[in-house]
Amino acid sequence: MKIITTIKECISYLETCSRPLGLVPTMGAIHNGHKELIKAASKNNSTIVTSIFVNPLQFGPNEDLNDYPRKIKADLTKLQGLPIDLVFLPSTEEMYPDNFSTSINVGPISNLLEGKSRPGHFNGVATVVCKLLLITTPNNVYFGEKDAQQCLVIDKMVKDLNIKTKISKVPTVREKDGLAISSRNIYLSKSERCSATIIYKSLVLAENLYLQGVNKPKLIKNAMSKLIKSVPLAKVDYISIANPSNLKELGVLEDNALVSIAVFVGKTRLIDNIYLKRIP
Amino acid sequence: MKIITTIKECISYLETCSRPLGLVPTMGAIHNGHKELIKAASKNNSTIVTSIFVNPLQFGPNEDLNDYPRKIKADLTKLQGLPIDLVFLPSTEEMYPDNFSTSINVGPISNLLEGKSRPGHFNGVATVVCKLLLITTPNNVYFGEKDAQQCLVIDKMVKDLNIKTKISKVPTVREKDGLAISSRNIYLSKSERCSATIIYKSLVLAENLYLQGVNKPKLIKNAMSKLIKSVPLAKVDYISIANPSNLKELGVLEDNALVSIAVFVGKTRLIDNIYLKRIP
Repeated sequence: MKIITTIKECISYLETCSRPLGLVPTMGAIHNGHKELIKAASKNNSTIVTSIFVNPLQFGPNEDLNDYPRKIKADLTKLQGLPIDLVFLPSTEEMYPDNFSTSINVGPISNLLEGKSRPGHFNGVATVVCKLLLITTPNNVYFGEKDAQQCLVIDKMVKDLNIKTKISKVPTVREKDGLAISSRNIYLSKSERCSATIIYKSLVLAENLYLQGVNKPKLIKNAMSKLIKSVPLAKVDYISIANPSNLKELGVLEDNALVSIAVFVGKTRLIDNIYLKRIP
Repeated sequence: MKIITTIKECISYLETCSRPLGLVPTMGAIHNGHKELIKAASKNNSTIVTSIFVNPLQFGPNEDLNDYPRKIKADLTKLQGLPIDLVFLPSTEEMYPDNFSTSINVGPISNLLEGKSRPGHFNGVATVVCKLLLITTPNNVYFGEKDAQQCLVIDKMVKDLNIKTKISKVPTVREKDGLAISSRNIYLSKSERCSATIIYKSLVLAENLYLQGVNKPKLIKNAMSKLIKSVPLAKVDYISIANPSNLKELGVLEDNALVSIAVFVGKTRLIDNIYLKRIP
């Protein structure tokens, strides 16, 4: 497993690698979710690159950029046993030199849900992912479904800008009690960690209501909201039941829907989602 | 000379072409300026692609998108005799399908001069050039120095987004009387065409004053402005004397400066520029 910190060396190393090439972009704090991405990548690629880069552009001024877990040594140890050829580990200055000023906006979809709660977030995501894709030129890139809107934003960018990479989405990995695995879970105190299970429970509730034939998103949202309110440490940021392609809120449930939720558990903001599909 | 209208076929055709590959992006209405770009490209590349695409994204709502000269047949005839392997000729729908929504902003430099007079112009330029570069993946791309700010904007985008293409700038081609060749020159009536020569004359005046030791941009701008005012059909939009790297206006002339000018001649808006360099 080679470790490279400069863009120039990364490009040069990958010029002669065997194809297909798979990229798994991460912000470090490697967990089982990332491992599933790498596992998925290893099935379809001859060369696997993992990037570790905490991207300042996607954090708002009052967000957790400074607190975001950075554990490079532990990360590299965790990655050692996995089928990875290259870890691309650039510094902030390497990715964003002093006069860096370009930004990519993918349009309306980036202003909903996470984009509404975190203005500018998806411009930062799109910009860094574009850079990573153009530096490493992978055939395939892997993202987790936990960040469903991020997948849509990147999908849009790749299509609109004619980037020659196929995007693969990997199902959300969960703890035994259902909590979606996230680098931010380490922020949770013991009681918050316990309270956080309500997030997935609310999604399962949504699915059950849907399967029972409730077709008014409003009723489902109210039930989810009520459930979460029963947990004192949890506070809903948003609940959305939307068209999974364009994230437009649904007035009546259709055959496909994406239920997305953002919840503050103490000071920690967590997101999760579930796809609703009519069983044929 | 092959002609291809779809992105898919273009990518497929270029996959096996011999390298280096040079791209000359145009909006058609091929003139001697374009021919110089193609000539420059032919010196350093094994395969030459010219794109013809009138990019709606770079026109403002009150600009000349509908009037912009489109003469595909005449263009293809002109290109026949030149060392071109492929003409990429996509439709608007091919480049911007119905739900297209991504935009690239390269930051402060795109808000000055042309960007100030034509809000959104450089987002449109950056977006289409990014697409063309990612579709054709050229080793080299060629732009004319007449659009000096465009060159800077594209340079910034390519560096910031790690696009693997080298940008080459080709000196402005002029008519015998000095008027910079532009597709928009055909808009000019006979008397306007005659008046338009004042643009280059004003740039030559700037250069002469500079070489005579005048080092206050304000004095030079005033002299240029006065000269242009002497021509009734011409009206200055802006005159700039700026740092050629970041386009910041200079208070005192340095060893390098870019004099840029935009002038309405009748209803036609023309731009031109000249680099001032201290003779060592």
